[in-house]
Amino acid sequence: MNQVLQNLQPRLADIFTHLHGHPEISWQEKKTTQYIANLLKEARMEPQLFEDMTGLYVDIGEGIPRVGFRTDIDALWQEVDGKFQANHSCGHDGHMTMAIGTALLLKDMEHLLPGAVRILFQPAEEKAQGARAFVEKGLIDNLEYLFGVHVRPLKELQDGTYAPALYHGAAKLFTGTILGEEAHGARPELGINVIEVGAAIVEGLQKIWTDPNVSASIKMTQFNAGGTSTNIIPGKATFSIDARAQTNEVMQALTEGLERVRVSVEAMYGAKISLQVDAHIVAALVNDEALQHMNSAIVDVVGEKACASPVITPGGEDFHFYTYERPTLKATMLGLGCGVTPGLHHPKMTFNRERLFTGVNIITRAILRAL
Amino acid sequence: MNQVLQNLQPRLADIFTHLHGHPEISWQEKKTTQYIANLLKEARMEPQLFEDMTGLYVDIGEGIPRVGFRTDIDALWQEVDGKFQANHSCGHDGHMTMAIGTALLLKDMEHLLPGAVRILFQPAEEKAQGARAFVEKGLIDNLEYLFGVHVRPLKELQDGTYAPALYHGAAKLFTGTILGEEAHGARPELGINVIEVGAAIVEGLQKIWTDPNVSASIKMTQFNAGGTSTNIIPGKATFSIDARAQTNEVMQALTEGLERVRVSVEAMYGAKISLQVDAHIVAALVNDEALQHMNSAIVDVVGEKACASPVITPGGEDFHFYTYERPTLKATMLGLGCGVTPGLHHPKMTFNRERLFTGVNIITRAILRAL
Repeated sequence: MNQVLQNLQPRLADIFTHLHGHPEISWQEKKTTQYIANLLKEARMEPQLFEDMTGLYVDIGEGIPRVGFRTDIDALWQEVDGKFQANHSCGHDGHMTMAIGTALLLKDMEHLLPGAVRILFQPAEEKAQGARAFVEKGLIDNLEYLFGVHVRPLKELQDGTYAPALYHGAAKLFTGTILGEEAHGARPELGINVIEVGAAIVEGLQKIWTDPNVSASIKMTQFNAGGTSTNIIPGKATFSIDARAQTNEVMQALTEGLERVRVSVEAMYGAKISLQVDAHIVAALVNDEALQHMNSAIVDVVGEKACASPVITPGGEDFHFYTYERPTLKATMLGLGCGVTPGLHHPKMTFNRERLFTGVNIITRAILRAL
Repeated sequence: MNQVLQNLQPRLADIFTHLHGHPEISWQEKKTTQYIANLLKEARMEPQLFEDMTGLYVDIGEGIPRVGFRTDIDALWQEVDGKFQANHSCGHDGHMTMAIGTALLLKDMEHLLPGAVRILFQPAEEKAQGARAFVEKGLIDNLEYLFGVHVRPLKELQDGTYAPALYHGAAKLFTGTILGEEAHGARPELGINVIEVGAAIVEGLQKIWTDPNVSASIKMTQFNAGGTSTNIIPGKATFSIDARAQTNEVMQALTEGLERVRVSVEAMYGAKISLQVDAHIVAALVNDEALQHMNSAIVDVVGEKACASPVITPGGEDFHFYTYERPTLKATMLGLGCGVTPGLHHPKMTFNRERLFTGVNIITRAILRAL
């Protein structure tokens, strides 16, 4: 296998260069999807595309696939050198390269595989929507294991070290409105001052208690009320709330706490408070068997010394929706220490591309161990 | 005097019609000033104008005036029949008519007056700036008594009834900014969330205790913080506060309480809170001797039955700056019950104009009693 991977390296380097130079934003990854499909077809594989959306998957080996690997394929939209454009500053170009390398490597040894493998090329990770769409298409229904990968910044993993799991946190963004009652400043008793209602919500958030062993926070991040007249008691406000928790249980506790705050403040002030969830990224659910397979694969490839501890990070990943929606799925994400600088999502983000080949090696071995 | 007033009535009706048809907003009452000056000159008076601002005054009788009467001369800027324009919906056209009538009446009996009277035509009452400007010009320095008048809505005074004093409340409008520290939503400990600072100010306002016998309120009426990203902890906010009190002592207590809130919340959050006073209208300071003269004048003209009790109103009047700045000045305002409908400041405000003649009669008699 090592010799085959060695021979693949110049081709994977070209593939990375192509993908890096052709970024496409979430749900618009049409050329990326077609590029990958063509490449897999040329290697005698049968990629499956969708009529209603971007992304694809391919199965390698005989029978129903029990082990999967997922990559994200979209880019960010950001300002680069003063110009707004799609940009692969989150490393999805590298993730795709590793997924393609893994597919090519597995295809090469297809006759030796004890079972089938599914490689998932998932769109719209940056919008936290693609994983949900793949779950709805039933693409993970028969999988026992699912692996993923993410390049890591220097401060989380040294270049050339690898972690068998990434513990991302959960994030939930709410927006809301408060309807009170306008009144003249001299007649406060005739109004319902939405700023006082908002202040009571802020105070209420500080009374939601959760497990102190799990890091969490819930904060109001926007509040707007009142027009140009300072002598009118405002009757309408909009606000947003940002909630974070290192586990999904604590995020659920924050969500239930927020609802208690909403009901109690409504009752106190006679105002109408509406809330909606604008975004929800679940926390990592890492399976110990999957983690052990990944750990062994890392040790196989780079030795004990380069195998790091699992990484705990407050960032989010929509990979974890797979396990959130299918709790029996055994999953983990490889943390690839490749010296990302200046940081993820920085327009000039760059990293040590040599690590992609090591990544393909580790991922393929983890899959083989799980098969 | 009654016969002279009777003869004056058609002329005063014409004067009212002219003034009503030529409204001018605060500090722009140039034609109004000139119209009144010409009218007084024609009646052999010597009106005094200013080089640097609108408004005027006239002295009648021999010596230094000891008794004054003040009218406001500006109009509001508001939408009337879908068009924004200057509009006399606060009754200043009527107040001016009464001041002119009083001047003409006093001029007619100048040789009988035991002292001199000053009639003040004050600009910019609606901006709460004109009284302060007149004080600064020294126009009330030698006055012992100062009278004023305001037409009243039906719910305060029945048409054809008159009150010897108007107890307006104090109002103070503050604007402020909060400087905290921006941070990523996942790292709240690195920021200072200005919404939490604002909520603490709102809570603090509710802890300012003042004399429960005096009506008062202090409320936040605007609050704006946060941009379009709901996952960023906001670092800057703007807000406004509306304070009301029926006495100036309680307004002072509210002001001092607000400063305590500012200092304590700054200390709690490490934020920088700045505050400024955008407007300040002081509460009525009514002198009992002045009130008794006005009361006697009312009874003289319309009898006991039509003499109402002093009116307590949460609205504001910059007339009271005269007594606030010169506490020895004996002052009161006549409340003219003339059936104002639908209400003061309503674009279609109208009232019973016949009452203006009764007003001239009462005001002139109050002045004569105080001389």
